[in-house]
Amino acid sequence: MAAAAGDDEVPNERVILKRYVTGFPSEDDMEVVTATARLAVPPGSAAMVVKNLYVSCDPYMRGRMTKHERPSYVPDFVLGEALVNFGVGKVMASGHPDYKVGDLVWGMTGWEEYTLVPKPETFFKINHSEFPLSYYTGILGMPGLTAWAGFFDVGKPKKGDYVFVSAASGAVGQLVGQLAKLTGCYVVGSAGSDEKVNLLKTKFGYDEAFNYKKEQDLDAALRRYFPEGIDIYFENVGGPTLEAVLDNMRNHGRIPVCGMISQYNLEEPEGVHNLFQVVAKRLRMEGFMVFDYFNQYYKFEEEMAGYLKEGKITYVEDIAEGLEKGPATLIGLFTGRNVGKQLVAIAQE
Amino acid sequence: MAAAAGDDEVPNERVILKRYVTGFPSEDDMEVVTATARLAVPPGSAAMVVKNLYVSCDPYMRGRMTKHERPSYVPDFVLGEALVNFGVGKVMASGHPDYKVGDLVWGMTGWEEYTLVPKPETFFKINHSEFPLSYYTGILGMPGLTAWAGFFDVGKPKKGDYVFVSAASGAVGQLVGQLAKLTGCYVVGSAGSDEKVNLLKTKFGYDEAFNYKKEQDLDAALRRYFPEGIDIYFENVGGPTLEAVLDNMRNHGRIPVCGMISQYNLEEPEGVHNLFQVVAKRLRMEGFMVFDYFNQYYKFEEEMAGYLKEGKITYVEDIAEGLEKGPATLIGLFTGRNVGKQLVAIAQE
Repeated sequence: MAAAAGDDEVPNERVILKRYVTGFPSEDDMEVVTATARLAVPPGSAAMVVKNLYVSCDPYMRGRMTKHERPSYVPDFVLGEALVNFGVGKVMASGHPDYKVGDLVWGMTGWEEYTLVPKPETFFKINHSEFPLSYYTGILGMPGLTAWAGFFDVGKPKKGDYVFVSAASGAVGQLVGQLAKLTGCYVVGSAGSDEKVNLLKTKFGYDEAFNYKKEQDLDAALRRYFPEGIDIYFENVGGPTLEAVLDNMRNHGRIPVCGMISQYNLEEPEGVHNLFQVVAKRLRMEGFMVFDYFNQYYKFEEEMAGYLKEGKITYVEDIAEGLEKGPATLIGLFTGRNVGKQLVAIAQE
Repeated sequence: MAAAAGDDEVPNERVILKRYVTGFPSEDDMEVVTATARLAVPPGSAAMVVKNLYVSCDPYMRGRMTKHERPSYVPDFVLGEALVNFGVGKVMASGHPDYKVGDLVWGMTGWEEYTLVPKPETFFKINHSEFPLSYYTGILGMPGLTAWAGFFDVGKPKKGDYVFVSAASGAVGQLVGQLAKLTGCYVVGSAGSDEKVNLLKTKFGYDEAFNYKKEQDLDAALRRYFPEGIDIYFENVGGPTLEAVLDNMRNHGRIPVCGMISQYNLEEPEGVHNLFQVVAKRLRMEGFMVFDYFNQYYKFEEEMAGYLKEGKITYVEDIAEGLEKGPATLIGLFTGRNVGKQLVAIAQE
């Protein structure tokens, strides 16, 4: 059933990893090169070729830039090969009966123009192309499902809960806050600039927000915003923020642990000294991964598409144009340069 | 309904806290004094007077010896007053309709000969006096219920799970290991002396055990005993052990957090640096307190009494004779001097 658009070789611009990284990564660790791609699948194979339209730029990618002695939860990037992450694409050729030329899909792809996908069944079909397709790297894609699963399934929110979200204007955080408001919670977010704080309050409906870089004493800030304590802390940053939060949790609080971006670029991660609070307050800290919720994706997609149509949820993206901006864009994620969900636009449909 | 045995004043030996403690406590922080007690309840009151037979000596008492700025999960001890903890006693006088003279009970009492209990309903009746009454400070009391609730309700064990228990020969640990074996798990314990390690293997049925003081590299030790990783870590110690365990957990592992004895006497608790493993392995770390399970106590008591009768579970106690040994016994808990459940015998029934 191979339905190739043509088997000519075409140039294939890509962002590759040049060397494994310790500490803070730099643009030089990556390189934009031009390889070639064939817009056809091997005869008899069930693979597909995808033209990448948008690729997602996510903090967890930092882990894949390091060489791990023990296998990590996601594979390390391969030196000299394109970076790999979730992206939105259009099928150019397919040997798979369920994926045909012209289909719009999203899944794990390369930071490059064209990607040969050996297992198309790992890709999701896009059912709501009435929204910007870039949303499938965010609110309707992996970060959206992450926010939804982490907040509802792990956080187990109740109406009236006090919710704190760190990295609150990011791809996941902006959604957690809005889902919390839809659930009837009181929600406060922290972010790293006044612009982001303003966005949290004016755009995402956070009850309060603060710039953590301007707080001398995070513990005092949390006491101020949560005089009664925190029921749910949606953890995106780790380190000193987690430590301050632990002292301000309420009994039986929940901490869905989504990520710890403050620690990813440190040679030696910071220690958290007050884990005894987990006992004293009977806290539940629980890590989760979006992969475990992929079987609920289409249910999630319909729910979130409904919120979008009804105007109940909004989404802010930060789109870098072109793969050549890829390395700087990824580094910018770790200095907090992006405002909203960061992604890279590669091509028009 | 006051049924007093007599309202004469009697001498009442007690262990009091002399000063609040920071860092490692010493015997001098306490003092054995003789006050007086009345063996009668005030007219019209629903209180009772208990003659204390055994008092429990538990690591969590360390927290109560410190003055807390923010209220702790249990009240700080009151200077000049008897230490307070769970104990077994006999009712000497009662104004409460459900508690009568001669009843054997256990509950929160004083480190003293006689205690006036304002709320008898917080005490449990002893239904199995065919066992040593001291067991109600341990296997049939608070530590027993702690092990049972933490392992089953928080740990959610499945047959075949790999289980690691720290402080494994202690009041709680020795039971967790035996409950794990009854559930069909593979269980390894750590303890602080060869004598305790021997006990774990020969008496409590642990599959393997090791003396953590003899291990240069805890991580390597855990890799040796758990080549496939750990499903459940029953956390009693915290600090470097927790850090080594996090690196050796399996995906979706559970960590019931019961206590962190290694940290209680430090001026500044140690940091745990690898909490990102909570995300990477999708771990659940969950603190719990026995208080939340008191409504299941009598169910637990029957189950555990059944195991005892059938010889399926055994229990090792370390009994100090007399309140004058109280201060040294409590300090000994933090140097690991006790072998098995530590308690203080005060009087014969």
